[in-house]
Amino acid sequence: MKLIVDANIPAAERCFGAFGTLTRLPGREISAEHIRDADALIVRSITQVNESLLAESALRFVGTCTIGTDHIDHAALARRNIAFASAPGCNADAVVDYVLSSLLILAERDGWSLLARTVGVVGVGNVGSRLLARLQALGVKTLACDPPRAAAMGEKGDQAFAPLDTLIERCDVLCLHTPLVKDGPHATYQLLDAQRINELAPGTVLLNAGRGDCIDEMALRGRLAGKGDISAVLDVWENEPSIDASLRDLVALATPHIAGHSLDGKLRGTWMIQQALADHGGQVAPEAFTDICPPPAVASLHLQEALPLEDALRLCTRAVYDVRRDHDSLQRQMHRQGVKVGFDTCRADYPLRREFATLMVRLSGGAAELEAPLRGAGFQVQAG
Amino acid sequence: MKLIVDANIPAAERCFGAFGTLTRLPGREISAEHIRDADALIVRSITQVNESLLAESALRFVGTCTIGTDHIDHAALARRNIAFASAPGCNADAVVDYVLSSLLILAERDGWSLLARTVGVVGVGNVGSRLLARLQALGVKTLACDPPRAAAMGEKGDQAFAPLDTLIERCDVLCLHTPLVKDGPHATYQLLDAQRINELAPGTVLLNAGRGDCIDEMALRGRLAGKGDISAVLDVWENEPSIDASLRDLVALATPHIAGHSLDGKLRGTWMIQQALADHGGQVAPEAFTDICPPPAVASLHLQEALPLEDALRLCTRAVYDVRRDHDSLQRQMHRQGVKVGFDTCRADYPLRREFATLMVRLSGGAAELEAPLRGAGFQVQAG
Ligand SMILES: NC(=O)c1ccc[n+]([C@@H]2O[C@H](COP(=O)([O-])OP(=O)(O)OC[C@H]3O[C@@H](n4cnc5c(N)ncnc54)[C@H](O)[C@@H]3O)[C@@H](O)[C@H]2O)c1
Ligand SMILES: NC(=O)c1ccc[n+]([C@@H]2O[C@H](COP(=O)([O-])OP(=O)(O)OC[C@H]3O[C@@H](n4cnc5c(N)ncnc54)[C@H](O)[C@@H]3O)[C@@H](O)[C@H]2O)c1
Repeated sequence: MKLIVDANIPAAERCFGAFGTLTRLPGREISAEHIRDADALIVRSITQVNESLLAESALRFVGTCTIGTDHIDHAALARRNIAFASAPGCNADAVVDYVLSSLLILAERDGWSLLARTVGVVGVGNVGSRLLARLQALGVKTLACDPPRAAAMGEKGDQAFAPLDTLIERCDVLCLHTPLVKDGPHATYQLLDAQRINELAPGTVLLNAGRGDCIDEMALRGRLAGKGDISAVLDVWENEPSIDASLRDLVALATPHIAGHSLDGKLRGTWMIQQALADHGGQVAPEAFTDICPPPAVASLHLQEALPLEDALRLCTRAVYDVRRDHDSLQRQMHRQGVKVGFDTCRADYPLRREFATLMVRLSGGAAELEAPLRGAGFQVQAG
Repeated sequence: MKLIVDANIPAAERCFGAFGTLTRLPGREISAEHIRDADALIVRSITQVNESLLAESALRFVGTCTIGTDHIDHAALARRNIAFASAPGCNADAVVDYVLSSLLILAERDGWSLLARTVGVVGVGNVGSRLLARLQALGVKTLACDPPRAAAMGEKGDQAFAPLDTLIERCDVLCLHTPLVKDGPHATYQLLDAQRINELAPGTVLLNAGRGDCIDEMALRGRLAGKGDISAVLDVWENEPSIDASLRDLVALATPHIAGHSLDGKLRGTWMIQQALADHGGQVAPEAFTDICPPPAVASLHLQEALPLEDALRLCTRAVYDVRRDHDSLQRQMHRQGVKVGFDTCRADYPLRREFATLMVRLSGGAAELEAPLRGAGFQVQAG
């Protein structure tokens, strides 16, 4: 088997080497010429997989190690009967880490307890469902909104999900994890419009790690600059990378679309395509996910005395990832290089980040009672 | 032996119980009546030990579990031949923890490396000398200024110490750890006056954990609000608790005179007076310091891969103490309760804090090379 693989995909030799001969190429340079006699093509979002690329190919498999597939012409693949796989949810856990880290920071800063709040999750897909599960394992009250899923589930859906306006009425924290849908009954474009932004109760925290266009930014800026009685955490923005710097100044935590940027998430993307390729070829996948993950720098944290769960969460979270690092770096780079270049520089030079699941939390003495919630929050836990 | 002991002194039963019968009293209420037939009096700074208190007493020993002795009339003690002890330096390590935590936060936020800077330490007593030792163990370039000590050492002093203006010229970071001295050749009142504040190079970090009056706050406020090209970290202020809120708003990290407020520091105060009382009575001290310290909630952190020293320092530091907690809480309490009450509330309700030395850092693999610097920074280290 002959495979063409984007040179920037991590762990590619290890994951695909067993299938055949690999040719690594910069994603931007992959051409029809290169794939003429290849059997499989593995890309990231930088390679446009369309008619003109596929014209002369004999490909049997195309995989993209990303959650997005905007760069893939599905019809062109179908016409040629080329099998396809992407990596949905590969970095969903990284986004959940980002959300928990952010909320714990704001809670400490503003003097409230995350565990005592009601959190609303809008968009219950790969990210939203994992976020709900982790919050519930911590004992946090949650409400979920996902009209497309609710509709697909019928009556059961009405029990599991609530309308957005109910979340706005009842939640102290609102987390957006919706894709951008421009039209139709479940459009998400400016889902949080001026009216809904005005309806948010004072003290509400609004977090968006879905897509920037799901919020009416002008209305949000108005509320933050005017009454200033809500807080916002934004990882996604209208017009990235040329984002609204005046909005960024008003936001409690502002980051450059990096919520999902963990090393583990990238490796999981490669690994998922390896699984798909193995399934396609009827082979057993050669590598387990944990085998391709390098050990983390922070191996373990040992807690030995009774301490409040929220304090323990903060300690464990920060031993892995503190969102303030990325907030500060965006602020600094935009100040130095301007909005657009600053935003892109932060993404391009993004420092290594691991997921909560790489930290082993050892518990003994009075801390042993934290076993279930800390495991639920996403850490490995060893008690006793 | 009969002992009168302030009710708010921690571990008092444990440290003084073996010497005789303890009577615990609120420090404010201790009267001449109470100590009439007592042999020893152990206080904090809240009890005025003066002629009128001592008038009818048969005391043989007075101890204060504090570094300050402004509440003690030394002449009155001397006239009655009463032995005296205080606890100089008992919380000096806590102050050094505060300094290192603050500088590592600013370095990350503003994108520089602490390890590459030159740090000037002004006032090389209990705090300053420990700070210098820890910085030097980390390989940080340092300069020290302490004219009284330099003078006492003669020629050797000129080698060990430099004039303040040399520090201002050469240092990227300037840390003040001087007491308030109003007059004389080495007065520290407004040691950093308007002229010196203007001479600080752009980018300088000025930290004060000595006494507020050592800085001309109006000049500092002018520089921060005007050019805004230096950063300040202030734990001590003119007119505490009625501090200048407009200065606080301009300061990168602002805390309410809590740099020394560790549990370990308080316990060390008790323990030092126990030692002094034992020496006074010719007895062996009944307790070792580590025996009176409760185990910390965070027992250990295990690093296993090569990582930059400054990243490792940040991880270890934050597993014990992050100054942002106290900065945020001051901001919040002042906003809620006003400047004066907010400042005092933060001090009165100060949350439990441990010192770096309570954390065991376990090192393996590539992280083993961090053994010496992490130990030098104040942590316990176990490598291999
Ligand atoms: N910030 C980041 O770094 C980052 C990382 C990963 C994903 N994302 C983004 O987060 C979003 C969610 O990702 P995912 O992987 O969970 O996607 P997904 O497709 O698995 O889930 C999206 C969910 O949103 C629901 N939805 C659609 N319209 C809705 C509406 N009007 N109201 C409420 N819910 C609605 C869908 O039914 C679906 O369940 C995507 O836009 C993705 O691009 C961002
Ligand atoms: N922020 C806090 O929580 C906290 C905690 C502990 C100590 N402190 C304060 O920090 C200061 C230092 O504490 P310490 O225990 O190290 O005191 P110390 O007496 O041990 O040391 C003070 C040093 O300052 C030197 N000094 C005096 N005048 C000087 C001058 N003009 N220029 C330079 N150096 C000069 C002295 O020679 C001495 O070496 C004190 O004012 C103390 O009250 C604050």
